[in-house]
Amino acid sequence: MKRIAVLTSGGDAPGMNAAVRAVVRKAMSEGMEVYGINYGYAGMVAGDIFPLDSRAVGDKISRGGTFLYSARYPEFAKLEGQLAGIEQLKKHGIEGVVVIGGDGSYHGAMRLTEHGFPAVGVPGTIDNDIVGTDYTIGFDTAVSTATEAIDKLRDTSSSHKRTFVVEVMGRNAGDIALWSGIASGADQIIVPEEEFDINDVVSTINKGYELGKNHHIIVLAEGVMSGDAFAAKLKEAGDTSDLRVTNLGHILRGGSPSARDRVLASWMGAHAVDLLKAGRGGLAVGIHNEELVESPILGTAEENALFSLGEGGKIIVNNPHKARLDFADLNRKLAH
Amino acid sequence: MKRIAVLTSGGDAPGMNAAVRAVVRKAMSEGMEVYGINYGYAGMVAGDIFPLDSRAVGDKISRGGTFLYSARYPEFAKLEGQLAGIEQLKKHGIEGVVVIGGDGSYHGAMRLTEHGFPAVGVPGTIDNDIVGTDYTIGFDTAVSTATEAIDKLRDTSSSHKRTFVVEVMGRNAGDIALWSGIASGADQIIVPEEEFDINDVVSTINKGYELGKNHHIIVLAEGVMSGDAFAAKLKEAGDTSDLRVTNLGHILRGGSPSARDRVLASWMGAHAVDLLKAGRGGLAVGIHNEELVESPILGTAEENALFSLGEGGKIIVNNPHKARLDFADLNRKLAH
Amino acid sequence: MKRIAVLTSGGDAPGMNAAVRAVVRKAMSEGMEVYGINYGYAGMVAGDIFPLDSRAVGDKISRGGTFLYSARYPEFAKLEGQLAGIEQLKKHGIEGVVVIGGDGSYHGAMRLTEHGFPAVGVPGTIDNDIVGTDYTIGFDTAVSTATEAIDKLRDTSSSHKRTFVVEVMGRNAGDIALWSGIASGADQIIVPEEEFDINDVVSTINKGYELGKNHHIIVLAEGVMSGDAFAAKLKEAGDTSDLRVTNLGHILRGGSPSARDRVLASWMGAHAVDLLKAGRGGLAVGIHNEELVESPILGTAEENALFSLGEGGKIIVNNPHKARLDFADLNRKLAH
Amino acid sequence: MKRIAVLTSGGDAPGMNAAVRAVVRKAMSEGMEVYGINYGYAGMVAGDIFPLDSRAVGDKISRGGTFLYSARYPEFAKLEGQLAGIEQLKKHGIEGVVVIGGDGSYHGAMRLTEHGFPAVGVPGTIDNDIVGTDYTIGFDTAVSTATEAIDKLRDTSSSHKRTFVVEVMGRNAGDIALWSGIASGADQIIVPEEEFDINDVVSTINKGYELGKNHHIIVLAEGVMSGDAFAAKLKEAGDTSDLRVTNLGHILRGGSPSARDRVLASWMGAHAVDLLKAGRGGLAVGIHNEELVESPILGTAEENALFSLGEGGKIIVNNPHKARLDFADLNRKLAH
Repeated sequence: MKRIAVLTSGGDAPGMNAAVRAVVRKAMSEGMEVYGINYGYAGMVAGDIFPLDSRAVGDKISRGGTFLYSARYPEFAKLEGQLAGIEQLKKHGIEGVVVIGGDGSYHGAMRLTEHGFPAVGVPGTIDNDIVGTDYTIGFDTAVSTATEAIDKLRDTSSSHKRTFVVEVMGRNAGDIALWSGIASGADQIIVPEEEFDINDVVSTINKGYELGKNHHIIVLAEGVMSGDAFAAKLKEAGDTSDLRVTNLGHILRGGSPSARDRVLASWMGAHAVDLLKAGRGGLAVGIHNEELVESPILGTAEENALFSLGEGGKIIVNNPHKARLDFADLNRKLAH
Repeated sequence: MKRIAVLTSGGDAPGMNAAVRAVVRKAMSEGMEVYGINYGYAGMVAGDIFPLDSRAVGDKISRGGTFLYSARYPEFAKLEGQLAGIEQLKKHGIEGVVVIGGDGSYHGAMRLTEHGFPAVGVPGTIDNDIVGTDYTIGFDTAVSTATEAIDKLRDTSSSHKRTFVVEVMGRNAGDIALWSGIASGADQIIVPEEEFDINDVVSTINKGYELGKNHHIIVLAEGVMSGDAFAAKLKEAGDTSDLRVTNLGHILRGGSPSARDRVLASWMGAHAVDLLKAGRGGLAVGIHNEELVESPILGTAEENALFSLGEGGKIIVNNPHKARLDFADLNRKLAH
Repeated sequence: MKRIAVLTSGGDAPGMNAAVRAVVRKAMSEGMEVYGINYGYAGMVAGDIFPLDSRAVGDKISRGGTFLYSARYPEFAKLEGQLAGIEQLKKHGIEGVVVIGGDGSYHGAMRLTEHGFPAVGVPGTIDNDIVGTDYTIGFDTAVSTATEAIDKLRDTSSSHKRTFVVEVMGRNAGDIALWSGIASGADQIIVPEEEFDINDVVSTINKGYELGKNHHIIVLAEGVMSGDAFAAKLKEAGDTSDLRVTNLGHILRGGSPSARDRVLASWMGAHAVDLLKAGRGGLAVGIHNEELVESPILGTAEENALFSLGEGGKIIVNNPHKARLDFADLNRKLAH
Repeated sequence: MKRIAVLTSGGDAPGMNAAVRAVVRKAMSEGMEVYGINYGYAGMVAGDIFPLDSRAVGDKISRGGTFLYSARYPEFAKLEGQLAGIEQLKKHGIEGVVVIGGDGSYHGAMRLTEHGFPAVGVPGTIDNDIVGTDYTIGFDTAVSTATEAIDKLRDTSSSHKRTFVVEVMGRNAGDIALWSGIASGADQIIVPEEEFDINDVVSTINKGYELGKNHHIIVLAEGVMSGDAFAAKLKEAGDTSDLRVTNLGHILRGGSPSARDRVLASWMGAHAVDLLKAGRGGLAVGIHNEELVESPILGTAEENALFSLGEGGKIIVNNPHKARLDFADLNRKLAH
């Protein structure tokens, strides 16, 4: 393979730039040329494709967001879009592509490979909800950002004996809530993977104040419900504390990536190049047990593939991501 | 004066602990004893008063919030509450008090002094809306925190070509919005001190994207309206961009105080002790033109007092705080 | 076991407080009482031992350093010291102890257990050089702090086309240098686990500037030599660039622990309590492949023990910590 | 004036990029074109001059260092260099220049103006040692960075009962030491503007430990002597504490500029354009008493000029910068 391309897709995540840098620098060290594609699959189809060199990614390792821009592009689910994309890639002499993004982005990589155009996925999302890897790029930064924000909320909630509901991102996954909840010493963590009884939440609040605590912080994963809705439920269930809601929102997506995310991004990005160089596509890179792994994006569970196809072409997740509910237990022990 | 007390009142602000530390250490270096009062005027009336020494404020200079806790206590507006507070202070042998807080807190200090109990105010609020000082304790930290958060939002908004409305605190003042808006290179800043035309806001958004910008950030002071309400107005006025709203909320109140806030807090806290030592009460400490100043809390505008009493005891602000609208002009020049 | 104690020993590390908090809260949730010991083994022998409760560790999770203080105490290598320590523990009704620290600290735990007093080790050191765990508490924070500092140095070195030698801690291990070097996009990483040729270092500097780079950053592990000595060698070998040396020094030990370190500390601290509760001593807690593990401190390599005793009681490290030299390779690929 | 240029000179400082951005954007809003000059006066003479537009300074406000690079270039003190520079500027159609840097940089601006080429100075240096302004661009960031580093050192020094000598930059000025010393609650601050007795320093260390302090931090301005030399003097004078030295070094020059530095840089950079637009050169911009001011670079003290010429063309500083020694007094009161 003489020339490859790289794109970022889906929601942006800190560390995507570090991954792009690794793809570019590693490919060049292997004697390949690298092109960048702006705005993900949308840019691929539109031909927004341009050469990248080593200097183009200089000083990018520390930058948040993605300098290749990202976009959601549902049209790429259709055959027409996929073929148009491949045509553009071929026009630029590109023979393989690295796709950095979430599982939606992986489906595109899978389709490209099916059409004979090798593509490799690198897990880039703050949500940590991708199968085939223990950690996604951006997760550590998002947890750090959330933890720092909750530390600040604790300062002010302690000063005023307040209860805070802190809503954090994570789509359907509770990982950001679990990790940042433990790290910030939250009093309660509510995640979609675990049921809760609102009356228990209220009585835990009361118990905390009775024990002499001067604040009460509840970290709520957005996958459960919104912070405002949760607060309304609390009041309905009889909470009488001085209650505030904060949605940390999009600040979790930004910021200079953490050292760990930069390392993971560098490591996985470079490995994606190794796979393409070996002519292997249709794979997703991951970190498992502190080592690099790769999994087929499509196949059967026995093949250790991430997804398989069910009836009518429905995509089935073979081994859905599981939240560490042992952390939820741990926090219940440590909160009081 | 042999023994003084210190309390924090109103909304908490980063740097309040640094001010308390300065009061304690300065008073001790002058041979006085110092007591702390928990929960502001509420704690004063309830007798939640205890001795502080040098070690008690060790390592507090870097801590956010207020370790003396704060509370709003409207009952202190009544004579009964004021006399009960003084009784408690005298019971502990206290002869003067330093009140760290916003202008509501100053009114209490004024009343205590009127009843013959000298009290001095120190401006502690993130809003920078107190007369008699160029800067309040906590403002610099809040501006820094807001700026860092907007930097993060810019990462993600640039990645996706998004428009963000970022709501920041400040009560009726636009200072936090103006400073953090300039510091973060916001595209537009909307403050209560200046009228705006929602159609102009929309056309400025459009102009930005036409000029090739890949994001548009509007910093909105809470004194104007909520971020959600503003976004609704934007859409009503025809905005077609990918619009998101973030309310930075209470995180602006927390966090380790900035170096500058710690210096200002140390400086003003120490000066409050000097005033009490000289037997002077009814004054508010401030920084003006880089030097310490003090102003009578109550008096006439000619006396340079902060407030005067109008008919029926109504409190009149003599020289209301003015936002730096030249910064709004500056930003309009620099945004594009 | 009804009552246990906890101490921190050796060089302090961010996250030690989070581990102490976890020990205290977990033990209390299991119905045990907890005592703190100041200044490590020195305080144990001196009887500097006092009860801790849940409130005593409130707000400690985010604090750098160790509020139990730490000290090196070589006298504990002698039988006399060990017996004196046990006597003090028994006097306070303590039946087991959690030791948070580096491998020197583990030896003390091993001796206590040998004398029939169960002790469990928790790996707390920024150096990441402890066998029996993939990560030590404090390492992630130290890497983050080093990376942030190197990011700052890059700003100024880029502005002036300068070469910087950045010395980082790590005792005999290169882990901090390897991780922070990759994370900061360093041009070269020099660690004790890998030989280097000073002439190659110089020619790599020259090559970088020839390729158009506007700075050159060399991260140097202290285990190799000092930054000043390294710079002297560079000049001797003919380096002609504008060369500066910075020793990041002790700032790597401080600061609020990273979210990840707080999570690891909470997890491992709680597990140490589980082991003591089950009456098991002489073990060291660790994280391996993202799960909790425990290893015998003393035993044979077959027993998976950390150390064994050689002739004359000499301590042999069974499976010495190995640096990830694949990261050194990775960096060579990505640096240019 | 239709076309101006901007350069950065001398030691780099965080906020220089924000100032360049303000010059570019303000000039464009006034209908002027702007060119950038790389590497300060060296680049001017070498013709390293290129057009800048609004997009070129996009996202630069938050970046440390200077993207125009900086260099010291003593040759510009000679007439030959100055004329060569002007020739280059004229070749590009440039009619005025904004020079961002320290007082050495101002001398160049003065010479250019003398030769009929209007130049305006903007104070950019972390040292805060420039006459004609209360604050220089970069000072607030350097103080913040130093304070954060000293906070980290306090964590570790408290854990081990250690004494730290922390050397900070500042050339001949003690401003960074004074502000960061107060902000970090340092035990002692040693600056070049004030004499000290090493025996007093030692007895203050001893007194601190006797009072029960668990650390002792001395902030030392580099203008006094090096940290190592100071430590040697301490030991010579009988200090028996566990003493460590840290030189914060060049990290003070880097990092994203503080919100305040960005505001000051934006404000002063824009004002420099106003002056050039009005055809005024030979001036230095500043902030005094929270308002913009400008001063003649060369003239008499009566004219409020920064410098005058003595015998033989020797440059005399009319009103040398004075450190706030009242902060030194304040700290002595608050340290114990």
